[in-house]
Order: sequence, then structure tokens, then C-alpha cells
Amino acid sequence: MTATRTETDSLGTIEIPADRYWGPQTERARRLFRIGQDRFLPGVIRAQGLQKWCAAEANRRLGELPDDIAAAIKAAAAEVEFGTRDADFPLPIWQTGSGTQTNMNANEVIANRANEMLGQPLGSRAPVHPNDHVNRGQSSNDSFPTVMHLAAIEAMERDLKPGLAALRASLETRAAAWAGIVKVGRTHMMDAVPVTLGGEFATWARQVANGRHRVRDTMPRMRLLPQGGTAAGTGLNRHPDFDRLFCEIASERAGTRVSPNPDKSEGMAAHDAFVELHGALNTIAVSLMKIANDIRLLGSGPRAGIAELVIPADGLSSSIMPGKTNPTQAEALTMVCARVMGNQTTVTIAGSQGHLELNVYKPVILHAVLESCVLLGQAARSFAVNLVDLLEPNTARIADNLAKSLMLVTALNPHIGYDRAVQVAKLALAEDLTLRDAAARLGFVTPEDFDRWVRPEAMLHPGGGA
Amino acid sequence: MTATRTETDSLGTIEIPADRYWGPQTERARRLFRIGQDRFLPGVIRAQGLQKWCAAEANRRLGELPDDIAAAIKAAAAEVEFGTRDADFPLPIWQTGSGTQTNMNANEVIANRANEMLGQPLGSRAPVHPNDHVNRGQSSNDSFPTVMHLAAIEAMERDLKPGLAALRASLETRAAAWAGIVKVGRTHMMDAVPVTLGGEFATWARQVANGRHRVRDTMPRMRLLPQGGTAAGTGLNRHPDFDRLFCEIASERAGTRVSPNPDKSEGMAAHDAFVELHGALNTIAVSLMKIANDIRLLGSGPRAGIAELVIPADGLSSSIMPGKTNPTQAEALTMVCARVMGNQTTVTIAGSQGHLELNVYKPVILHAVLESCVLLGQAARSFAVNLVDLLEPNTARIADNLAKSLMLVTALNPHIGYDRAVQVAKLALAEDLTLRDAAARLGFVTPEDFDRWVRPEAMLHPGGGA
Amino acid sequence: MTATRTETDSLGTIEIPADRYWGPQTERARRLFRIGQDRFLPGVIRAQGLQKWCAAEANRRLGELPDDIAAAIKAAAAEVEFGTRDADFPLPIWQTGSGTQTNMNANEVIANRANEMLGQPLGSRAPVHPNDHVNRGQSSNDSFPTVMHLAAIEAMERDLKPGLAALRASLETRAAAWAGIVKVGRTHMMDAVPVTLGGEFATWARQVANGRHRVRDTMPRMRLLPQGGTAAGTGLNRHPDFDRLFCEIASERAGTRVSPNPDKSEGMAAHDAFVELHGALNTIAVSLMKIANDIRLLGSGPRAGIAELVIPADGLSSSIMPGKTNPTQAEALTMVCARVMGNQTTVTIAGSQGHLELNVYKPVILHAVLESCVLLGQAARSFAVNLVDLLEPNTARIADNLAKSLMLVTALNPHIGYDRAVQVAKLALAEDLTLRDAAARLGFVTPEDFDRWVRPEAMLHPGGGA
Amino acid sequence: MTATRTETDSLGTIEIPADRYWGPQTERARRLFRIGQDRFLPGVIRAQGLQKWCAAEANRRLGELPDDIAAAIKAAAAEVEFGTRDADFPLPIWQTGSGTQTNMNANEVIANRANEMLGQPLGSRAPVHPNDHVNRGQSSNDSFPTVMHLAAIEAMERDLKPGLAALRASLETRAAAWAGIVKVGRTHMMDAVPVTLGGEFATWARQVANGRHRVRDTMPRMRLLPQGGTAAGTGLNRHPDFDRLFCEIASERAGTRVSPNPDKSEGMAAHDAFVELHGALNTIAVSLMKIANDIRLLGSGPRAGIAELVIPADGLSSSIMPGKTNPTQAEALTMVCARVMGNQTTVTIAGSQGHLELNVYKPVILHAVLESCVLLGQAARSFAVNLVDLLEPNTARIADNLAKSLMLVTALNPHIGYDRAVQVAKLALAEDLTLRDAAARLGFVTPEDFDRWVRPEAMLHPGGGA
Repeated sequence: MTATRTETDSLGTIEIPADRYWGPQTERARRLFRIGQDRFLPGVIRAQGLQKWCAAEANRRLGELPDDIAAAIKAAAAEVEFGTRDADFPLPIWQTGSGTQTNMNANEVIANRANEMLGQPLGSRAPVHPNDHVNRGQSSNDSFPTVMHLAAIEAMERDLKPGLAALRASLETRAAAWAGIVKVGRTHMMDAVPVTLGGEFATWARQVANGRHRVRDTMPRMRLLPQGGTAAGTGLNRHPDFDRLFCEIASERAGTRVSPNPDKSEGMAAHDAFVELHGALNTIAVSLMKIANDIRLLGSGPRAGIAELVIPADGLSSSIMPGKTNPTQAEALTMVCARVMGNQTTVTIAGSQGHLELNVYKPVILHAVLESCVLLGQAARSFAVNLVDLLEPNTARIADNLAKSLMLVTALNPHIGYDRAVQVAKLALAEDLTLRDAAARLGFVTPEDFDRWVRPEAMLHPGGGA
Repeated sequence: MTATRTETDSLGTIEIPADRYWGPQTERARRLFRIGQDRFLPGVIRAQGLQKWCAAEANRRLGELPDDIAAAIKAAAAEVEFGTRDADFPLPIWQTGSGTQTNMNANEVIANRANEMLGQPLGSRAPVHPNDHVNRGQSSNDSFPTVMHLAAIEAMERDLKPGLAALRASLETRAAAWAGIVKVGRTHMMDAVPVTLGGEFATWARQVANGRHRVRDTMPRMRLLPQGGTAAGTGLNRHPDFDRLFCEIASERAGTRVSPNPDKSEGMAAHDAFVELHGALNTIAVSLMKIANDIRLLGSGPRAGIAELVIPADGLSSSIMPGKTNPTQAEALTMVCARVMGNQTTVTIAGSQGHLELNVYKPVILHAVLESCVLLGQAARSFAVNLVDLLEPNTARIADNLAKSLMLVTALNPHIGYDRAVQVAKLALAEDLTLRDAAARLGFVTPEDFDRWVRPEAMLHPGGGA
Repeated sequence: MTATRTETDSLGTIEIPADRYWGPQTERARRLFRIGQDRFLPGVIRAQGLQKWCAAEANRRLGELPDDIAAAIKAAAAEVEFGTRDADFPLPIWQTGSGTQTNMNANEVIANRANEMLGQPLGSRAPVHPNDHVNRGQSSNDSFPTVMHLAAIEAMERDLKPGLAALRASLETRAAAWAGIVKVGRTHMMDAVPVTLGGEFATWARQVANGRHRVRDTMPRMRLLPQGGTAAGTGLNRHPDFDRLFCEIASERAGTRVSPNPDKSEGMAAHDAFVELHGALNTIAVSLMKIANDIRLLGSGPRAGIAELVIPADGLSSSIMPGKTNPTQAEALTMVCARVMGNQTTVTIAGSQGHLELNVYKPVILHAVLESCVLLGQAARSFAVNLVDLLEPNTARIADNLAKSLMLVTALNPHIGYDRAVQVAKLALAEDLTLRDAAARLGFVTPEDFDRWVRPEAMLHPGGGA
Repeated sequence: MTATRTETDSLGTIEIPADRYWGPQTERARRLFRIGQDRFLPGVIRAQGLQKWCAAEANRRLGELPDDIAAAIKAAAAEVEFGTRDADFPLPIWQTGSGTQTNMNANEVIANRANEMLGQPLGSRAPVHPNDHVNRGQSSNDSFPTVMHLAAIEAMERDLKPGLAALRASLETRAAAWAGIVKVGRTHMMDAVPVTLGGEFATWARQVANGRHRVRDTMPRMRLLPQGGTAAGTGLNRHPDFDRLFCEIASERAGTRVSPNPDKSEGMAAHDAFVELHGALNTIAVSLMKIANDIRLLGSGPRAGIAELVIPADGLSSSIMPGKTNPTQAEALTMVCARVMGNQTTVTIAGSQGHLELNVYKPVILHAVLESCVLLGQAARSFAVNLVDLLEPNTARIADNLAKSLMLVTALNPHIGYDRAVQVAKLALAEDLTLRDAAARLGFVTPEDFDRWVRPEAMLHPGGGA
């Protein structure tokens, strides 16, 4: 039996574990929502602390909170922000759709901790009151979505951007190193005209770089905070300058740039900015799935596949087939992509279902967007470090595959026309000839012209353009 | 610094925390996959223990394992099955797509624990070897998908079915109690002909009951286990009777009915049975979203909404609007539904992306399917207990809404024809009249006939059919 | 300028093209919904005709319609059913969500055509009235979803089932013919233990066969018709026996088995049966995407790919690369699968969004489900006839790939243990040796034992099980 | 029997309808792809004509085509561009995934028509050859995705932007007109603090305006054309300046700005730009679904719903309930949104599935993106013109709802504290009192203070901020 303290709220008394900082609203929610085991990612708790710190400071500067109360709130909020109070945030994602319980959780923990700092026992609700002081000039309806914006911005900076940057750098290093390796290209999965191995990596690097730009271009909407909307977007009960001042303080403390949404209700009744952002994350997942699939394909083998890349032996092997090396990182990454694509559906549905002044799918939207940011960033980095950086080209196989390819015939088009080039390719395939022999046998090209016209390395980058 | 022991595998030596039961494959994977914080739900570890127990027993009966080795493996596997070894399963979902690392994790933990029971130190790999004995006659390729099937079946029995049953019972209780409350129906969100409040609950109950049948009808495919396929579905290195015997033992131990997939490869190269099952789970999410939305709509108010149902005060309130009661459970449930619908996309993509002899999206498929089962089951129960059971009808409002409705005019169709009934309704709306007065003023119906023909309670259940 | 006739309805007069059978409701809708160019698939119009025919006959038998009126309605409805009146159904899918306009379109066309047969001009609304007679005992709210069920059942019989049957037969023919072709298996896209080419086709055939069972097992809900629910599921204004009789007549005329939904509202307020059915269609898409991807992979080449299958030259070639043969049918099929997977999201969202007594996403649900049925069925047939039936094995390449594979080492596990087998495989790969030589050099296996133990054809089907 | 002409290609002879401009590749495809009835939207054919016109002009300026050949090609291409040759594009979307058959269809139609203009019969393949001249310096692999980009840009200009602009203007007009109508706000669907009706429309207008910005910010990637990549992105067989010149000519002719993709392969092997764009379209669908749902909710009634807005009578009525007015345009729009959300899944899957040098889901990606653009644009316009412009506020109901609302109590928070305000609200609800009476009875607020503090119109826009 855990010792408890008794607290009272409008519904009556309730027992709370004596050593916990949360209060009656959190305790009630804990009992009412026994659904799943998912908890918000740590970034949400950090953002909760940040939001309450900034609100207290703004209220202090505006004269809405006395200095001592504000100081205590800020000290307690900083503990939340820096991870000291994680164990006091016990609520699941599957709660009220406004995130009210998590906002109240923050209000209660900070009030209790502030009161404790001020020499009062837990549960005293004075001198610092969770609603009247910690939540001063705020509603869950504007505070929680503000937390959402702050947490998403942080996740992009902390996980997504560095992860993508690492992957891009790894791919570009390979692209530069292997720019001279000419190999058979493949379209429709079938042998096609030559390309370079470096060029393949360069294209993947460009996809990753574009992904970064895609996310960046959704930021103008993500940087607008609904803080100040209070209840139903009206701004009721907050100081007229609160929204502006909050954003100035938050910009400085978070080291990023945020500003007040000119239409608070737009950021409370709807979360289009998150749906938009996730559209960019989803595009990144699409790019990464392509890249991982391609590397898996080129690395297939080691003997009976395409085998142009050598997958590194990472020590993880089959439990039955001895010595088997698998593209394990490609598999982890593509599974992450499948999850992100599912999150896209979740965020789309959740985003579309706001009613009038409030969207009540905030927790699931926040969780899905953060999860996608974090998983993509971390999986991209893992893929870069544990796979891309360790790949090696199988130059013998690459050369052999190239030499065999029938699609070198394409270089003959300008000289003998498409229709006759078809005949050359078909004869070579049917009779298992080289293109050179087939072209000669048909009398279309002399061997000398063939050698002059059909040079794989000359089939690339006409005019430096491609 | 944690004390470590040194183990050796084919890639070389590796340091493992001295007090952990896992081995080198798990340790390598732990370092190679630093992606996200998601872990498999507990049911997966339970199923891992169950699968290894049954495999050891089957091998013992077939003479493939000596009795003492089998006994030690079974004792260790039972610890995994019953939750004693959860802390020894540290790997994330985002690993190799075959689940090989989690299968090897189980092999290593069970081997180490069995050896310990037999008096050997951790890491001794003898007398019980993780591959040669614990994984005897198995591959990750057949064992992990077998775990998937067993875990999914358990999740349905343990969470989904009871949760749906609780919700169905709650809805049916209301349906019976309120079968006599006649109220305005609504189509296109607009006032329509009368229905009963009990009838609305009965329809929701039927949807929930159908959901149960939907899941049940996907079971014939879910009950077929790929165990015995070993590598690539071939059955290499296992006893000819292993698959059949494994299923007999598993059926008995799990208290359910499973049998060998006649085409092992079908259950390894593809996971269509999971995509199918999730299609049923997705349908349940669709039903529950409708139900929660309807209850939220009927409970809107308390004064300026439809307000035909009274949402219970659960003590969770607005952080700014005092005394506000919200349909918190409906919000938790609909967020769960949005997650499940996203899981549907994830499972669809992951299921479609198998290549040749193996689908390598097993962990994400398993996680998504289990998550959907567990969340739907638990959210349905929470919704039943914390909302449906506590709803009350607002009979005054119901009566008032019904009395005002213009769509009672539909009862006149058989008597005066559709075109004239239109005129009655339009006049009543335009002039704010009762239908009775409008009908009389137009000379279409005498007040006496009107009272005889237009009786809300008589507009229901013609011939007992609806 | 088209000649017009003037008609009048409750909103006033409206001009209708003189030669068209539709009436004012259709004409108003045509003007109000200028959205997109999608029209319902022909099966919807067929089902509309069928539904009105059966309703008229049921009403006739019940004495609700005089014989001559019923006869005229049935004659006109049959024209709709058999495609004669397609040009009189001009409305887009994007209309009222109850499908009311398409139901009224049918009512108006049939009434006008029936009146014409009875010697009256178009627009006379007598003796046959679109609402009072053609729509007798019906509402759009029950008639249109009845059309949905009937059209979906027909699409499954007409397109989906035969298409899947054709594909299954083609795959099974290949499976039988090539059961003896032993080839390298591939897991994680990497060389694995041997399988047979016939076995690969057999697994695909089984997936297709399962797809058929999946659809079949959703039928119990699809066969329940909401006809008889009239407005809001109440059954108002219809004869007590109408629902039962309608279903008897429809079963006979459509040559299928349907019965009344015991809870009409369940089939009007929600369309869970369609969400469920689409879950099965989505699973089929998942299976077919796997199959098409595998065949594309095995057919990659002709020289620098896996190249174990020869893709037939279908005459469709690259516009620039002469003589290139591509897996064109696999591409068409996988694009269809991507569309079906998108339809799954559409149907899920649309199905979840009913409000109270009516789901108003009926047209988009119907269109998506029918589209998926028809596209899957036709694409499966095209894939079977134009690709699967024309595939050939490249036996030389298959043999070469198999001989090189290192994973034959797995057969040594039971003899020398997993850890030593790892060493054999690693040495062979590193030094480019055969397994036989590597095993001998390590002193683990004599060449004689190797030849006895490592026989690809013996690595399959242990005990006939796999 | 249609008269035919005989043509020959590399596979042999084939009969083509004598009066059709297409050639053997189109005819073969027509027979090989009997899948569905979907055809590309007209914008695709327009873009095909535009692309071939620009290519011919670029080749002419570069000396790659003689003036007379180029002139004939351009004249024929212009006919395709302006809709004269639509009947000669018979192919379904479900074809080769590179769009090769549609590109060849354009090549063949233009060659035949150009030859006809030059006095040659159809099928002559000279002097203008479909591959050597019309497809000069091109591949399907770069031409078709160029068509994709051009068609998408056009669809945004032609349908999406004007449709959104119309809706935004309609909403802003209402926002301005009704800015002074104070009404009850609703959060969690429950009565909340006051807002204005104009404010609700202003928020919706802002969402629509943001949608426009979202699409605009994806354009940097959409404006990069892959033309010039020819086979596999290499640029083989095209003039070094072709890509740059093509884009100059296309920019001028299309009246928009496009430039060469610096990495051609990025625009051929992947279509991330389309996935990104669709993410923005999906966000617009999310916004529009919210708006349509809100208007449907506020318009519910006319008597037993919220009924704060009056839905216009558009003449489309129930087939059974006389005089019923429904929010028909909201239903059409939300169905469109469900379709667009499904297209998001389709485009995501299709975009992720490119292999190496080519994504072969081009037709389905193009179709889905265009469909979403066109449907959203047209449905938004229809919704604006046929619903938003005709809405009227029900001022009596609005005033009544506001007066009853208990959440006006929120204005007391700063004066009596949150906890006592809770007591006031609870007492008023329980005893059916006004807030004023409840506050007085509890002794917390004098009636005079109450009247001074609780003024709905003063609860809005503190400091002009919200």
C-alpha cells in the first residue's frame, strides 16, 4: 500500500500517492484512461515545462503574477523542462482530445513543486494555484497546442535535421568517390543504358536534401503559436500583450523563432500546420523507402543477385543459415517508413475532425508527428552510419553486368535509326551474340563504327547536363 | 561502469552486461538499432516464451532433444512466457525485418538461463546452445511469424473480445431501457422522422456485435502457423512431424486451436492473414468512431446543443472554463480509432512489400496489429464503463425536439401524396406554424385526420420489421 | 440550343432537355454539382434498375401498386437494368451523400418512360408518379444502400471472382509444370537455401485462393439489405412484408441470395459491411502487389538482373531503348493495387463519418468499392493472360545461380553445428571457394560427406511437409 | 466491321482502325490493357501536346530537326494540345508504369497527323517518324514525367487556385458581414465562451488562404522538369542545350515558369515532388472537411438541431420526407475530401516504389494528383456558390443559445477565482438557474458586479489580439 494524501476538487475528495507531485485532475485522469501503454515522447514534457516557464515570465513582466510566485513557478517549470519530473507525468496519450489532462498535469506538478519550494506541503494549492497562477492567462485549448508547436519544432531540430544531414553527407561522400564507376542502369527493373554508381548515390543525396527543404517550407505555419487564444480562441482572461510577449520569451529560450498566430482560433480549432508538416515527413519517408529499396536491390546476392554493392557484415545473422549477411539497416528504415506513412493517415483523419472552436485530436496528432520526426531522424542516421558508410562496390560484378548489357544499342539510334537498332538488339538476345557482332551481321554498322559510337562512358552526361 | 562478460561469435568478441541473460546477437543489435523508444507489447514476449516452450517439447517428443536439455529449455522458456525475463528483452521494434534479433534474443536468454539452471555460467553456450538447441528445427523465418500469430490470437482473446463484449452489453442495456423513448431522428444532420433512443443504442450494439463476427471470420487464416517452414519455407533441418506436433502442443498450452499452414511459405513470405485481420480491426474502428461521434453529438450542450443525452460529470474539467463537462471518453476513443486507421495503412504497405521467400516487415506488422487489438479493446471498455453506463436521457429536451419536428409530415404521404405534403411542410416552416395548422390551412387534412394519421409512436416499426 | 420542356416541382419551374427522360430533381442536381467527370460504373445503373424492378413487383404482390402501374414501372426499370437508359443518368458521384439524386434520377427516368409506354408525354408525372409509385414504400435512404449492396455483389461475381480464378489457374499451371525446377531461395533479398520455382508459383496461387475466401467470408454482412428501412430506418410508409418480399424477388432475379437486415438502420446509418469488404479487397491488393513484384524481380535482366524468368516480349517497347522488353503487366497491376490501397483509406474515412440515422458518404463508398472490385478483377485477368501464361524459366541461369549459392551450407548444421557452419560459409565467400572446398580445408567435412549431406533437391519438403 | 489498315512494327503486323491516327504501339496497348474505364483527365492530353510542341521547337532551334518536319510536328502537336485529337487517345491509366504507351500514343498520333498534313497516308512513318522525329532527343522516361509536371501546374492554375479563391472570398464576405453577431462558442462540442459568427467564417477563410500558400510553397520542386534526362537520366541522344531550351520554350508557351531539374534522374526515378504536392492538397482536404462539417453542424435543424445557420433550399429534397432541406453541397465536398485523402495513400505508396533509375507508377500518380486538384477546386467553388453565398444566420436562435450558456461564468475567474466559479456553474446547471442568480445565492458576486463583469461582447478580442 502506497501512502496517500487526500485532495479535494469540485467532484469531491480523491487519494493521491503521497510522494507524487501531481494533483486531483491528473489522478482522476489516471484512473479514467486505462488505455494502452503509450506515453508522450520526452520532448512533450520538455515543451510543457518550457511553455509554463515562458507563460510565467510573460505574466510577471505584465504584472499579472507577483515576482515571487512567478519565480517559484519558473523554477518548478525548469525542472519539468529539463527532465527532473518525468515520473510525475503518468498519463497516456489516449485522454481528453484537448490535451487538457496533460496541461493540468503540468499545472499541478508545477504548482505543487513551487509550493514545496515555498515551504508548503504538496496539495496545498497555495500560495501557487494550478489554475489561477500556473495556468494564468491560459487555457488548455491554447497552451496544449502551443506545446505541440514547440515540441514539433524541437524534434525537427534535435532529431530530424541532424539525421537527414548525416545521411545526406554519407550519400554525397559515396557519390563523389564512385562518380567514375560506370555501370548498367535499370529501368522497369530491366537492363538499360549505362549510368554511374556515383550518380545513383548523388540522386539519393538530392532526394534527402530536398526532404530538408520540404520541411523547411512548411515552417512559416508551424512557427505561429496559438498561445493567447485561451478559451475558444477569444483571448478571454489574458493580458492584451500576453501573446506577443510569450512568443518573444519563447523564441529566446528555445533558440528558435516563433510568433503569435494572428488568428488564434486557426491554431486551436484546426491543426492544419501539423497535417502540412506531416505531408513533408511523409515525403521524406517516400524518399527513404526508395533509397533503402535500391540499396537492398543492388546489394542482393552475394552470388545469385544483382550484387553490385557489398552489404557490410554487421554480425547479425540468420538463426539457421550460417554466415548469411542481410541488409538489416535497410529493413529497419523501411519499417520506419511504413510507420510514418501510417501516421500520415492518422494525422489526416485526426486533423480533419475538429468541431467548431476546437480540434479534440491533439494528443494523437502530436504523438504521431513527433514519432515520425524522431523515427525518421534516428533511422536515417543509423542507416547512414551502419550501412551507407560501410558499403563497397563489387567492381568485378559491375563491369561484367555492364559488358553484357544489350541496351548499349541505344547509342546507335542517331546513326541507324530506332527501327534498325531494334533489330540489332533482338538478334543479339535471340542468338546470344554481342551487339557488335549482331550489328555487323545485319550489315547496319561496321565493327569500327560500332567501337566509335558505342562507348558506355560516352553515353553519360551529354553536354554535362544530366 | 557496468561489469561485463566477454562473449564471442562469428564477428569476434563483444562485451555484454554481466548480469544480463542476453547474448552477443542481442548485444550487437542493441548497439546497431538506436531508433525510437518503442518496444514490443508484453504479449510478444509472452508468445516468444510460449513458442520456445512448445518447440522444445515437440523436439523432445520427436527425439530431437534429450530430455534434460528440453526440460531446462522449457523451464527457462516458461519464465519468459510468464514475464520474469522482460528486462532481458531490450530490443526496439525497428530492427531486422524478419524479427531475427528478437528470436535470437529469446534463444540467447533461454539458453543462458537454462545453462544457469544446469549450473553453467552465463555465456557458456553449453550444454544448451541458443541455435542448436533452443532454435532446434527452427529459423527466425518461421519462429517469429509463429510468434506473431500466437500473440495476435492472444491479444484478441485477452483485450479485444472482452472490450467489445463490455461495450456491447452496455449499449444493449441502454437499448432495452430506452426502447420506449420516442425522439426526432436525424438524417443529413437534419430533423427527420421519429425514431427511438433505444433503437439508436440497439443499432450501435449491433455494429459492435458485427465487429466481433468480422474478427472471428478472419480466424481461419490466422490459426494456420508457419512453424516448420524453417529457412525459406522449405522445412530444412526439422523433423517431418515437427510442425504438426508443435501445433498440437501449442493448441493445448495456449488454450486455443492452431494448425500447420499447409504452405509454410505463404505464412513467411507474406502476412496476408494480418492484413486481413487488420481490415476487420479497421472496420471496428470505423464503427466505434461513428458511435462515439453520435453520442458526442446527442450529448452536445448542455444548453446550446442537441442535448438529448446528458454527458456524465467525470471530474475532468476545462482548465479555464469552470464547471464544464466534456465527452472525454468519446475523445479518447476516437483518437484510438484514428490511430487504428493509420495502422491500417502501415500494415497494408508493410504487408505488400515482401520479397520472394520472406516478408521483412514482420516487427512493424506485429506491433501495429497488436496495438490496434489492445487499444480498441481497452478503449471500448473504458468508453463503456466511464461513459455509456453513466449516460442519462434528457427527456424534456427529447420531447420538445420531437414536438417541433416538421418531418412528422411524412406520415401524410400515403394520404395526400408527396407533392402536397411538401406544401404543408414548407408552409409550416415559412410561417412558423405547426404541421397540423398548416395542413388545415391548405385544406389538405382535417385536424381530426391529422391527429389520427400523425402519431410519432405509430411511425416506428411497421409490422415489427425495422 | 437544345429544345426543352418545362417541368415544375416544389421549388418552381425548370427547363429540361426535351428528349431526356430525367426530371426536375435530376436536372437541378446536374446544375448544382459541376464537380469532376467521374460517373458511377455501369454496375450501379444496372443495380438501380434491378432495385426498382423488384420494389415494383413486391408492391404489386402486396397490393400497394395496381398491376398496370407496376407492369409499366417494371418494363421501364428493366430498360435501366439492361443498359438502354444509360444516357439518362448524367449525374456525377459528387452529389448528395445519400445518393438521393441518383435514386431520384432512377425514379424520374422510370416514371417518364413508364408514362410514355402508357401513352403520356414526358414530364406528365401521371399515371406513374416518381415518388408515389416508383419510389413506393421506399426512401433514398434505404433504396440507395440497397443498390450499393446489389452492385457490390454483382461486381464480385462478374469481375472479381473470375479474374482471381483466372490468375489462380494460371499460377497453378506453372506451379505444377515447374515443381521440379530447384533454384536458389532468397530471404532478405539475399541468397538462401534452395526452393523450387513451382513452389514459388504455388505460394502465389495460394495467396490468390485465400483472397477469394477472404471476400467470401465478408458476405454474411453484405447479403443483408436495408431495403424496408425507408426514412431513418423506421420502415415508415412501407408494407410490413415489403422487406422480406423484396429480398425474395431480388434473390431470384439477381441469381444470388440476399435477405433483410434485421436492423435496417445498421445498413443506412453505417456502411460497415463495405468497409469490411474493402478490407478483404485491400488484402487481395496486398497479395497481388507481392506477386507482381516477385515476378518483376525474377524477370529482371535479361542479362544484368536475376533473370530466372523470361518476361514475354509483348511488343510494347521503350520509346528510346530499342528492343527493350518490360514487365508491363506487372506495372499495370501494381498501379491498380496502389489505387485499391488508396480506396481503402477513402472507404475507411467515409465509413466512419456517418451521423446519427444516416451515413452521407454513400456515393463515394460505392464508387470506391466497385472500382476496387472491377480493377482488381480485370487487372488480375490481364496479368494472368498477358504475363503469367507467357513466362518461361531461364533454366541455365537458374542452375548457375543455384550452384553458386553459399547457403547450401545450412544442410551442414545438423552434422557440424551452426557455429562451424558459419566458418565454412565465411571462408568460401572470402576466398571465393566452393563450400565443399572450404569445408574440407577447415577439416570439418570430408568431400564425400559433403556430397552426401549437401544436395539441393534433398533440402526441400522434409517429410512432405513444406 | 471497322475498316483497318495494316501496320508493322518490331513484333510484326497489326490491324489498326483505318480512321484512327494512332499507330501500332497504341493499338497493341489498347488490346493488352483491358482494365477499368478510367481515362486520363483532359489536362494530360493537353500537356502531351504542349510537351511535343516544345520539344519539336527546341530541336528545330538546335538544328536537330529540319524546319519543315518541325513545323508539321508542331502543327499536329497543337491539335493535340487544343483538344482536337482527344478521340485518338484511347488508352487507360492502367498501362505501363512509365506512361510509355501514352507517350508513344502522342508520338504516333502526331507523326501520322504531321505526315497527313505533308500529303502522306496514315501509317507511312515518313517523312515524320514517331520515334526518330516526334520523340527526338527524348525518352518516355523523361517526356512523360515532364507531361506530369506541366499537367499538374496547369491543374493548379486552372482549377485549384480559382476554386480556393472563390471559396475564400465567399467566406470573407460572410466574416465581414457577421463580425458583430455574438454567439456561443463550442469546444468539445459543448457550450463554451462566446465568439462571433463572423470570427468563425474568418477562421475558415484563413484556413483556405493557408491552403493556397501550402501549395505555393511546394512549387520550387514542381517547377523543375526532368526533360533532357532521356534514358535512365543520362541525357543520351539529346543535344546538350535541349533541356534548357525546352524549359524556356515551355515557360513561354504555358505562361508559367519551369526550369531544368539539375538532377534529371531525381525527376524520373522518383516523384517526390508529387508526393509533396499531394501532401499540400491533402491538407486542403483536411481544412475543407472541417469547414463543411462545421457548417453542417451549425445548420443542423431546422428545429431540433443547433440551427444557428439556415441551409438554403436548393430544391433537392428527400425522396420520402416532404420539404426536407439538406446540406447537399457540404456532402459533395466532404466526399471529395475523402477521395483526396485516399489519393494521398495512393500517391504515397506509388511514390515510394520506384526502382533504381525509374519509378513505374507514373500514370497512377499523375491521375491521382490531377484528380485531387480538379475535384478540390471544383467542389470548393460549388460549395462557395451554392451554399456559403446563400447561408443566412438564424439570429433569434443564436441569441437564445447565447443567453442560456453557462460558460459566461469564465469571465468571473479573475474576480472570484477558478474554484468558486466552478461552484457557480454547477449550481446553475443543477438548479436550472441563471448564472447571475447562482452567483448571488452563493454570495460570491453581487448582481451589479455580475452585470459589469459578465458581458458576452466584452469577452472577445482582448487587446484586439484574438
